This record gives sequence, structure tokens and C-alpha cells, in this order.
Amino acid sequence: MSRAKQVLDLAKDQGIMIATAESCTGGMVAAALTDIPGSSAVVERGFVTYTNRAKIEMLGVLPATLTAHGAVSEEVAIEMARGALTHSGADLAVSITGIAGPGGSEFKPEGRVCFGLADAGGITSETIEFGALGRARVRDAARDHALDLLLARMRTK
Amino acid sequence: MSRAKQVLDLAKDQGIMIATAESCTGGMVAAALTDIPGSSAVVERGFVTYTNRAKIEMLGVLPATLTAHGAVSEEVAIEMARGALTHSGADLAVSITGIAGPGGSEFKPEGRVCFGLADAGGITSETIEFGALGRARVRDAARDHALDLLLARMRTK
Repeated sequence: MSRAKQVLDLAKDQGIMIATAESCTGGMVAAALTDIPGSSAVVERGFVTYTNRAKIEMLGVLPATLTAHGAVSEEVAIEMARGALTHSGADLAVSITGIAGPGGSEFKPEGRVCFGLADAGGITSETIEFGALGRARVRDAARDHALDLLLARMRTK
Repeated sequence: MSRAKQVLDLAKDQGIMIATAESCTGGMVAAALTDIPGSSAVVERGFVTYTNRAKIEMLGVLPATLTAHGAVSEEVAIEMARGALTHSGADLAVSITGIAGPGGSEFKPEGRVCFGLADAGGITSETIEFGALGRARVRDAARDHALDLLLARMRTK
């Protein structure tokens, strides 16, 4: 069973609605979830915040956080996940911000992706170095990891 | 060259930033555009408004329009495109709302998808009956048509 289908089934079982806040994956997590029939019971909304301005306006990320840590940081991932939760009707939110490449930026390496996960119990974050796999593979890996994070959080409930 | 790459190249040439407002495609248009390196110069933000509440809160779609015409209607597609334009820093916005299936709803057939396109020059809308191709093919077709609409609008500039 696909990761997305597992997320959908578990969220339905638990009566949980999900929101996504995506930068480098640009909507791929939301697209994967909505690929499953019946996803409207689970996918509350998605934020594709590709620009810093969008992160600030849509999710309430603080300009000072972007300046201090850069868009690709756990600090920003945390604010994105918190913003997705508070600016939606969802119970669980996942955020993704990373450097898909080609090439690094902000003095950070290609393939670095930061994730945030927020629900009423709190917010967690992590950074994965996927490495210079190429843009498509980094994005696919980041999408799959975001789905895994949602699954793991729901399974520990 | 892929449709998404053509959209990116033309938008860059014209200095245009794009926003997306997606319901049935659930982020696929934004994901296709951000698949292209350098898309951060063009993709301003994306709204994945899967629920009616998200359409209202994120895009300013009027509850009365949803009640009168249903979520899958040109009236709602127009309000989604207008909302994406006015609630972003983008110059051009495309919206997609449809019935991917399986099965129809709201007394509307599977495969019906409504599109809106908004820029400073005004807003247009259209409905395409893709037919009961199955969920994945309807979504793919809707994504490709949205990209074609962006291309066509930029080419007439």
C-alpha cells in the first residue's frame, strides 16, 4: 500500500485532518495525498510557500527567523508547521523546506531538507541530508519522508 | 520541452510571477512548475484549497457562491483565481476545481473541471468535461490544461 494511502487510512481511522506547508516539494505532498479517492475527508488544505514572502504572509513565519537562520532551517520548518496548524482547521501539519538543487545555496548543501511536524501535543523538527541526488530524487525523497513523519506521529497516538 | 518548462521560460522572459489555486489537482500544478530548476523566480505561492472552508479562508470565495453553484462551478473558479491573485504577490493566477472521481457528486459528472485565469487584465473561466477517465487521468489532464491556460494567456500578451 502506498505511503499516501496509509496516511489517509490512518487519519480517517483517527478522525484527523491534515495540512501541508511545502517549500522545496512545491505541492508534492498534498498532490500525493489527494491522489487517493476519499482524501477530502483528511486533506484540510495545503500551503505552497515557495517564496519567503509567502512563508511570512501565509504561515506567519517571522522575517527575523528567515534572516537569522535562512529559509532552509529547522527554525523556519517549525514556524511553518505551527503556522499551517494555526492557519487551518487541521489537527496535524507537516512542513518541508529544503535545497532540492541543482547546487546548494545560502551556504548550505544540495539535498538538505528540514521538516516540521505540529499537532496539539507540540512541534518537532529534523534535518535530513539526502545528498546531491539531483532535484527530482531529492524532492521525491522529501515527499516520502514527510509522509513517513505523518504516519509515525499518528502511530504513536 | 515540457509544458511546465515552457510556462517557466515564458514567465521569466516576461517577468511574471504565478500563483496557483487548486482543488481537485491538490497541488499538482504547483508541483509540476516547481519541478523545474529556477522555478523560484516564477512560482510565487500555491493554495491547495481542498475544503470549502479553505476556499473561503484562503481565497475569499463567498459562502453564498459555494451554496448557489457548488464548489465545482465557473463561478467558484473565478473567485478562486481572483483570490489567488489578490492574496499573493503574483501577476497571473490559475484556479482548478473539479470532480476527479471516482463517481460524480453535487449532481455533476465525474471528469468535469472548471478553470479560472486572472491577471490585471481581467478574469476568464471555462469548463472542460474530461469524462470518466479515472481519477489519475482526470487529474493529469486538468494539470496539463491549467498549464496550457497559463501559456496561452502569456502568449497573447
